[in-house]
Amino acid sequence: MNPAEKTFSHLDPVTGQPAMVDVSGKEVTRRMARARCIVVPGEEVMQHLADGEIHTKKGPVFRTAIVAGIMAAKKTAELIPLCHPLSLENCHIDIRVNGQREVEIDCTAVITAKTGVEMEALTGASVAALTLYDMCKSFSHDIVIREVKLLEKTGGKSDYRKNG
Amino acid sequence: MNPAEKTFSHLDPVTGQPAMVDVSGKEVTRRMARARCIVVPGEEVMQHLADGEIHTKKGPVFRTAIVAGIMAAKKTAELIPLCHPLSLENCHIDIRVNGQREVEIDCTAVITAKTGVEMEALTGASVAALTLYDMCKSFSHDIVIREVKLLEKTGGKSDYRKNG
Amino acid sequence: MNPAEKTFSHLDPVTGQPAMVDVSGKEVTRRMARARCIVVPGEEVMQHLADGEIHTKKGPVFRTAIVAGIMAAKKTAELIPLCHPLSLENCHIDIRVNGQREVEIDCTAVITAKTGVEMEALTGASVAALTLYDMCKSFSHDIVIREVKLLEKTGGKSDYRKNG
Amino acid sequence: MNPAEKTFSHLDPVTGQPAMVDVSGKEVTRRMARARCIVVPGEEVMQHLADGEIHTKKGPVFRTAIVAGIMAAKKTAELIPLCHPLSLENCHIDIRVNGQREVEIDCTAVITAKTGVEMEALTGASVAALTLYDMCKSFSHDIVIREVKLLEKTGGKSDYRKNG
Amino acid sequence: MNPAEKTFSHLDPVTGQPAMVDVSGKEVTRRMARARCIVVPGEEVMQHLADGEIHTKKGPVFRTAIVAGIMAAKKTAELIPLCHPLSLENCHIDIRVNGQREVEIDCTAVITAKTGVEMEALTGASVAALTLYDMCKSFSHDIVIREVKLLEKTGGKSDYRKNG
Amino acid sequence: MNPAEKTFSHLDPVTGQPAMVDVSGKEVTRRMARARCIVVPGEEVMQHLADGEIHTKKGPVFRTAIVAGIMAAKKTAELIPLCHPLSLENCHIDIRVNGQREVEIDCTAVITAKTGVEMEALTGASVAALTLYDMCKSFSHDIVIREVKLLEKTGGKSDYRKNG
Repeated sequence: MNPAEKTFSHLDPVTGQPAMVDVSGKEVTRRMARARCIVVPGEEVMQHLADGEIHTKKGPVFRTAIVAGIMAAKKTAELIPLCHPLSLENCHIDIRVNGQREVEIDCTAVITAKTGVEMEALTGASVAALTLYDMCKSFSHDIVIREVKLLEKTGGKSDYRKNG
Repeated sequence: MNPAEKTFSHLDPVTGQPAMVDVSGKEVTRRMARARCIVVPGEEVMQHLADGEIHTKKGPVFRTAIVAGIMAAKKTAELIPLCHPLSLENCHIDIRVNGQREVEIDCTAVITAKTGVEMEALTGASVAALTLYDMCKSFSHDIVIREVKLLEKTGGKSDYRKNG
Repeated sequence: MNPAEKTFSHLDPVTGQPAMVDVSGKEVTRRMARARCIVVPGEEVMQHLADGEIHTKKGPVFRTAIVAGIMAAKKTAELIPLCHPLSLENCHIDIRVNGQREVEIDCTAVITAKTGVEMEALTGASVAALTLYDMCKSFSHDIVIREVKLLEKTGGKSDYRKNG
Repeated sequence: MNPAEKTFSHLDPVTGQPAMVDVSGKEVTRRMARARCIVVPGEEVMQHLADGEIHTKKGPVFRTAIVAGIMAAKKTAELIPLCHPLSLENCHIDIRVNGQREVEIDCTAVITAKTGVEMEALTGASVAALTLYDMCKSFSHDIVIREVKLLEKTGGKSDYRKNG
Repeated sequence: MNPAEKTFSHLDPVTGQPAMVDVSGKEVTRRMARARCIVVPGEEVMQHLADGEIHTKKGPVFRTAIVAGIMAAKKTAELIPLCHPLSLENCHIDIRVNGQREVEIDCTAVITAKTGVEMEALTGASVAALTLYDMCKSFSHDIVIREVKLLEKTGGKSDYRKNG
Repeated sequence: MNPAEKTFSHLDPVTGQPAMVDVSGKEVTRRMARARCIVVPGEEVMQHLADGEIHTKKGPVFRTAIVAGIMAAKKTAELIPLCHPLSLENCHIDIRVNGQREVEIDCTAVITAKTGVEMEALTGASVAALTLYDMCKSFSHDIVIREVKLLEKTGGKSDYRKNG
């Protein structure tokens, strides 16, 4: 299906005003989404990496970022105006340092519901990254979140897996 | 000052546990921070750009993203565990399409207080970007937030301006 | 059934203390509610109406009010002490100017659950109206919300439709 | 000053996008606002009025509505997108039955700050009214909130007092 | 089963990082939990007990504490980082003075879901107790919450009833 | 001053309805409060104590509880109906195991404001304790929070220090 057709079938033909999507008629299925955030903390920050964790005056960075990310994933519908409120059944965040001395944050969200949890996974990963920023910014402000993206989702009308 | 010295002077020498930074003794000054988020929506989404706005079944994207970003900036201390609660005096979000058909989101936060508003600016820009994602994801999931960074801050102990 | 009988059958005969209603034994059905709020902005404000929207220094009024109303509808159980938390499946807000140069705000909420969404519809309409007030108050404070009411509800023990 | 002039001086001449008003340069003064909400509960509900309070299966209506209204006033900046977050110094809600067997809800908010508390007073009164609705709706849905308005405000650039 | 075995079977064998428990595969059943909080207000406060209620300048203590406790129970997943968000179907708080002139607060929570509501009951009771503290602290700060515990839970893998 | 006099001078002589205390006329001073919560986790849980931390399938208990407690302290005015919203300048939580194999949680809150932070300290300690409960309850439900109290406060009209 080409993009134009997708638009045509989906568009509320009327008002052009903000609106939620009606999911009341959709099927309840198990849905999963996984998002990734890559943070480039820079060398000043990475000098403080030891035993798989960064310690700052604000405490252990990765552990605190995981807690913040999970709590934010639960708040997704409060942050993103047109998201449906969902009762997450699982949210898992994994943080590790990759070969380029970047920090990779993966957030996986799971639910059995009428709509998917992409935004929950993306929000959880993003707020974990922002928390990392906050805890490390006394070392340097040259921290960059260089990527936030969806890796995969399953369980809705169509599955998705990121290329490359 | 080298990074090691910074660490030495800042580190809570005790517990290694999460902790806020005590700002009760700091000076009240006018503080400003500006952050940028760049979103690469991809061609499927950008086909729907018209007159400086993207319209989807969820409504006008940029305008809704601005509202979401401002509201999220006000919630920063609720999202980032060790941030101080602050009464923002201004928050401005600007969204435009740049020459590479990317969406640039700038968020500026202002306060007169004992601590800065970097996290408010970064959070506002990030949630605006996530809202853009949410509203456009019926077109495509190949949307990538390719950069979140601080552009500048003024008014605290030291100013900062991003190079490049 | 007369009111006295209703009271008799419903009243927690014991304490007179605040209490939620136990809905754990109720049936899951599709429930809809629609509420209306009428705002009389007054002439100073209405001079700024153009092309079905009011533009102020705070931006486009109706579009922002719709976003605020939808977000508030999702927060209903946080605002109204004895409301059950519900995962809204749809929330739609429509704003238009009627023949008396008043602003009519209709909010429709939908859920498949054990209890109804009247309060969600009423809260969504009310906060949309308050947002309109906030955005227009630099023109005039003589803005009056002159009616908030339930138009109809379906799907529970008994349907309701407002007369007149 | 005529309305057009007000507009001219206030309008952000640029984007037409949602934006907060920058209050960072404004003066800190003591500000007060008082709003009123009138609820017409209808006869079915008013039969349950006794000793200045309505008792339902959800508990004492006016007392619970006051608590809800005060808590909502504190949440104003979370509900109204472009409101500044404020640390309320006082919030008082008074509920009484008037001569027309209507319920009058007055909410007074006070702060020492750079911007006013009209929206806090209006939000507190509105959520108190919605709580009254929620607690009485098992008796009847023919409850109407027939007026929400600002009675007065003092302490900013200009005072306001409602006529009539 | 001895504790060591419980640990062995439950422990995420991997990371030692904060994580939610995946409940997506669990069965939906009716679950109930009841928690108790005992507050020792001290004699200065208890002199103000009359007709089963304490009245202070902040209003009726027990009634307000019940409202606060119910609202907090609904916020449990926002407060406790790894709790699943749940749509409570009932929450009931009962406050009474026992023979030792202590205040006993019982909070009962009910849901039909994949996971239990112990934390909701405990949170509701605790915030009711904190509200009592707040309302009585103008009389004395020698108020002690001397016990918060789970009384019973039913409906999950195993029931629990407190001894003694 | 005897208790009766305190009451007399403080009591809103009018309505007996819930009300905030007006602090708009009070002096801005530096205020500190420290509260303690003692948790008796029981032997099943304490077997898992190693190197000053308890590890469960939900992760490191004390570190997560500290994060939760700090975040809750920032939410105090949202939880306790008549508390004033405050912008905490510091919040520090310390958790340790005492000689009776109990867990002691101390929460210190600091602000420069017109009113004190006792409730912030008590709320932070309580939610840290509830988080400990949540993370350890897969081992045992025989966990008891056996004390929540204020240790000291300074900076308001009168200081307070707990005896014994």
